[in-house]
Amino acid sequence: MRKTFRVLLGLALALGSAWAAKLAVFPYDGAALLAGQRFDLRVEASELNGALKDYHITLDGVPLTGLEQTSQATGTAEWTLRGLSLRPGSHTLEVKVKDEAGETQRIVRWEARQYPRPLRPAKNVILFIGDGMGWNTLNAARIIAKGYNPENGIPKGFLEIETGYGGMATVVTSSLDSFIVDSANSASSIMSGLKLPVNALNAGPANLKDTLAHPRVETLAEMMKRVRGASLGVVTTTFGTDATPASVNAHTRRRSDYQAIADQYFGRGGFGIPLDVMLFGGSRDFIPKSAPGSRRKDDTDWISEAQKMGYTFVSTRTELLAAKPQGKLFGLFHLDNFPSYLDRAVWKRPEMLGSFTDMPYLWEMTQKAVETLSQNPNGFFLLVEAGMVDKYEHPLDWQRALWDVLELDRAVAWAKQYAAEHPDTLVIVTADHGHSISVFGGYDYSKQGREGVGVYQNAKFPTYGDRKDANGFPLPETSWGIAVGFAATPDYCETFRGREVYKDPTISDGKGGYVANPEVCKEPGAYLRTGNLPVNSSQGVHTADPLPLFAFGAGSQLFNGLIDQTEIFFRMAQALGLNPYLGR
Amino acid sequence: MRKTFRVLLGLALALGSAWAAKLAVFPYDGAALLAGQRFDLRVEASELNGALKDYHITLDGVPLTGLEQTSQATGTAEWTLRGLSLRPGSHTLEVKVKDEAGETQRIVRWEARQYPRPLRPAKNVILFIGDGMGWNTLNAARIIAKGYNPENGIPKGFLEIETGYGGMATVVTSSLDSFIVDSANSASSIMSGLKLPVNALNAGPANLKDTLAHPRVETLAEMMKRVRGASLGVVTTTFGTDATPASVNAHTRRRSDYQAIADQYFGRGGFGIPLDVMLFGGSRDFIPKSAPGSRRKDDTDWISEAQKMGYTFVSTRTELLAAKPQGKLFGLFHLDNFPSYLDRAVWKRPEMLGSFTDMPYLWEMTQKAVETLSQNPNGFFLLVEAGMVDKYEHPLDWQRALWDVLELDRAVAWAKQYAAEHPDTLVIVTADHGHSISVFGGYDYSKQGREGVGVYQNAKFPTYGDRKDANGFPLPETSWGIAVGFAATPDYCETFRGREVYKDPTISDGKGGYVANPEVCKEPGAYLRTGNLPVNSSQGVHTADPLPLFAFGAGSQLFNGLIDQTEIFFRMAQALGLNPYLGR
Repeated sequence: MRKTFRVLLGLALALGSAWAAKLAVFPYDGAALLAGQRFDLRVEASELNGALKDYHITLDGVPLTGLEQTSQATGTAEWTLRGLSLRPGSHTLEVKVKDEAGETQRIVRWEARQYPRPLRPAKNVILFIGDGMGWNTLNAARIIAKGYNPENGIPKGFLEIETGYGGMATVVTSSLDSFIVDSANSASSIMSGLKLPVNALNAGPANLKDTLAHPRVETLAEMMKRVRGASLGVVTTTFGTDATPASVNAHTRRRSDYQAIADQYFGRGGFGIPLDVMLFGGSRDFIPKSAPGSRRKDDTDWISEAQKMGYTFVSTRTELLAAKPQGKLFGLFHLDNFPSYLDRAVWKRPEMLGSFTDMPYLWEMTQKAVETLSQNPNGFFLLVEAGMVDKYEHPLDWQRALWDVLELDRAVAWAKQYAAEHPDTLVIVTADHGHSISVFGGYDYSKQGREGVGVYQNAKFPTYGDRKDANGFPLPETSWGIAVGFAATPDYCETFRGREVYKDPTISDGKGGYVANPEVCKEPGAYLRTGNLPVNSSQGVHTADPLPLFAFGAGSQLFNGLIDQTEIFFRMAQALGLNPYLGR
Repeated sequence: MRKTFRVLLGLALALGSAWAAKLAVFPYDGAALLAGQRFDLRVEASELNGALKDYHITLDGVPLTGLEQTSQATGTAEWTLRGLSLRPGSHTLEVKVKDEAGETQRIVRWEARQYPRPLRPAKNVILFIGDGMGWNTLNAARIIAKGYNPENGIPKGFLEIETGYGGMATVVTSSLDSFIVDSANSASSIMSGLKLPVNALNAGPANLKDTLAHPRVETLAEMMKRVRGASLGVVTTTFGTDATPASVNAHTRRRSDYQAIADQYFGRGGFGIPLDVMLFGGSRDFIPKSAPGSRRKDDTDWISEAQKMGYTFVSTRTELLAAKPQGKLFGLFHLDNFPSYLDRAVWKRPEMLGSFTDMPYLWEMTQKAVETLSQNPNGFFLLVEAGMVDKYEHPLDWQRALWDVLELDRAVAWAKQYAAEHPDTLVIVTADHGHSISVFGGYDYSKQGREGVGVYQNAKFPTYGDRKDANGFPLPETSWGIAVGFAATPDYCETFRGREVYKDPTISDGKGGYVANPEVCKEPGAYLRTGNLPVNSSQGVHTADPLPLFAFGAGSQLFNGLIDQTEIFFRMAQALGLNPYLGR
């Protein structure tokens, strides 16, 4: 009987396509925006029956003017209106198209939010994103950094991230087109308040080939600059045009539009709002195509252009610490991603560092960024990403990932101190998505393989911190560690240990799949674990697991409870008293 | 040089044992208690050099009287003082022992907390524990129950647990003797505020063979009854003497002292405080040894004894719903654990249900328990455990586990309604420990094995809820599900699916180890995954990952931030204005 039903349903759907065109609208039905927030409207009709005969697009009953109409293919028609914004309240967009089979209608509702100006609004926002730093990741980093008193089992303390906060929340994530996010759409949801498609940066879906022409939505940072004249900054340990840093002011359907993202950082493209401070790895997209390592297709040299535009340029830690920039600072400290904290501070293996031996710590970049941005009396927005947390969770290298959380923690400590001295500053620490990491026991490093794992009472207490590095961080080498696993893996070899020279967990099988890296499988105690990800997965993946959020300073009390990620955007706006509709 | 140091250190330690005895004290140094909370003091001297010549044990400088001195073995001496309690403030216990080698001293500090009486104190507490329900588990259950709007990716809603709360916190756990907890010491930490050893129920460590003689600590529930005359209740889907239910008033170093735990429920042993309402599975420990399935070593028949003591006894859902107990209710609905919600409500396989076909839902047990307990004008404490969440996460059977979270959620919905109508009621929902579960993608049930897994944009949106059971819960059978993994596993075969008749993931290899269950490995699409737990592990294990806490009603605003688990005890006491020191 169920089969019959399916056949009938299939028939109905097939017939259906002859009856009605399909109508897609961005922003989507149910979208919430900030009143006055700019966005591009996109309406797409597809599966039209013959020629488009007529259409009506009205907002709150009033026909929209200025719509640009195109047609990407037979049976389609599209309308775009760029730079729209809404007055506070509920809105209804009505679309009617008429084709040779009749009329199709679509009604889409939006909410434009406006918040009362708080008594003591924040002027500055420092948003820290631990990329991939779900609750379990943060927890694991704390266990390493703080540990437990072995006399009574009481935790010896909490991270800087986890103490002195004015608000704490748990955050859930999802994409417009999937319940799992990537860093691009996830960070964009934090920055612009909308659900967006996987791999999109502050841009919605469209049937366009040109990923840069997709409908855009204005970010909080862009509004702060446009409306208030605030300064904008981005600090990250990844290459500069990576998804999370790009979420501040880039707009593209495809996160790998690296050259365009670099250009948008300087106000060329997107909504034309440039960044004032940029400190990151990854010079590839900022140097002309003729330069070694460049990923550009043109001759633009943003290093020299930037200096003409008034940016102080630095490329080493020494230069950064000595710099006295006038409001604008541009730093590229690597050709690509930073090596992990452990590589830079502890292991210092030439295989990992290459020629980049003079690199700043995240807390130094944070401090210099704030010192530069805070010259602007109109306030600032700074995104600081600990980007290598995610980059090392992907290949299951939890040691590198967790020590990068510790590096982030020190940067947060500095920002908390700044916020204490500048009470008009809001500091937020959160993540964009989780990884499938879990701490399930202790590990006896005098043993090898599975037999080193101790669970329940045999987990004992880790001994990290018995020796410390020059920054006071525990060394990864200790006698009794933690047993860490990932719930979603490719085929890989498990050793329960870190390694000073990074190895990929998998290698290509030459047939589109991946197999465990035989170099890892040769290590002492290593053994093969068959994965649970599709065989074309080279590494671990993002999860739907919930994320921590801690807030400090002005408006921090707004951040509490269990919230959807898009709420971070609205609560930042609320804390700022940001009201682009009223121009303040 | 490091080697030399180690040798010297070893020498010093070896000599050290000739110099100084070892002194152990419970409660441990750094312990926090509620002022007026009863506990047993235990002091143990070991490695004495020859005979004990003298000792001094003082509390705040005053010699303690009534100490019972024993000696368990050569070179040891112990002192016990039962039923001690402290006035508010800081306290110092000083122990000096003299043996033939000289004097050894140990100073231990305790804090006895007292809270100001709140303006509107709670009179009743309903504490829900989702056993093993870490943040990731709760999140996975929400994804199944609520899902996402496929038009815009926005979550369709939150669980009852996650809405309308007055406070939300994240909780971290640890044991006195390990950083991983089991359900016994973890639930006991919630109930009594102390860190306790793995497998202990409101009891500390000691060198005693008799696990029931170990030093005890009074629970919140016991104090509510002793000081206020409140009624106490326990509801669970596990066998009644399991660790979490036993945490309310049982005291033993060994959670498997089932017979003694059953006796303590009725006030025989422990601190002598009986429960008034008990509704659970697991009659084994309540029926005389002659009865089939009994685990008792004596002829006690608690079913008939209880009725003589005024308890109404029920053994089926029909009887439960019809019962009109006068303050005391005793229900045993199974010989052992309840079958999972899916077994009882959806699949109803005789292999899983056996003769137990008339079993109540958790929300029905909760309601009847509250109706009975609330006859007492002095208030009540009720623990409701969704115990099978943990029992099915252990064998990686996430379907059974997650649907049991949904059953819990409905019970919480009822309790929230009760608290809304009885504003002197505090409702808390939390967990005792995590499991290594993670949701990392979607799953296409038309496929088999790893190739059914969709990650990132291919994760799409799960279709649970397309069909529903008689209670309105989504059916586990759907076209597009979630891909779930565990980060810590034994060797097992993965199928990505549930099964109507439960199968263990492993079987014994006959040599003390466990191997993947060949019955599972035969299922379509099944394949072997080598685990990362010691080979003597038959199933998954508890983790150190953080836990959710949601609070509703009177005092719920006290539950916020990132807290150690022992804080739950103190905040409940604070919400209640419970002050056993002042007798209120």
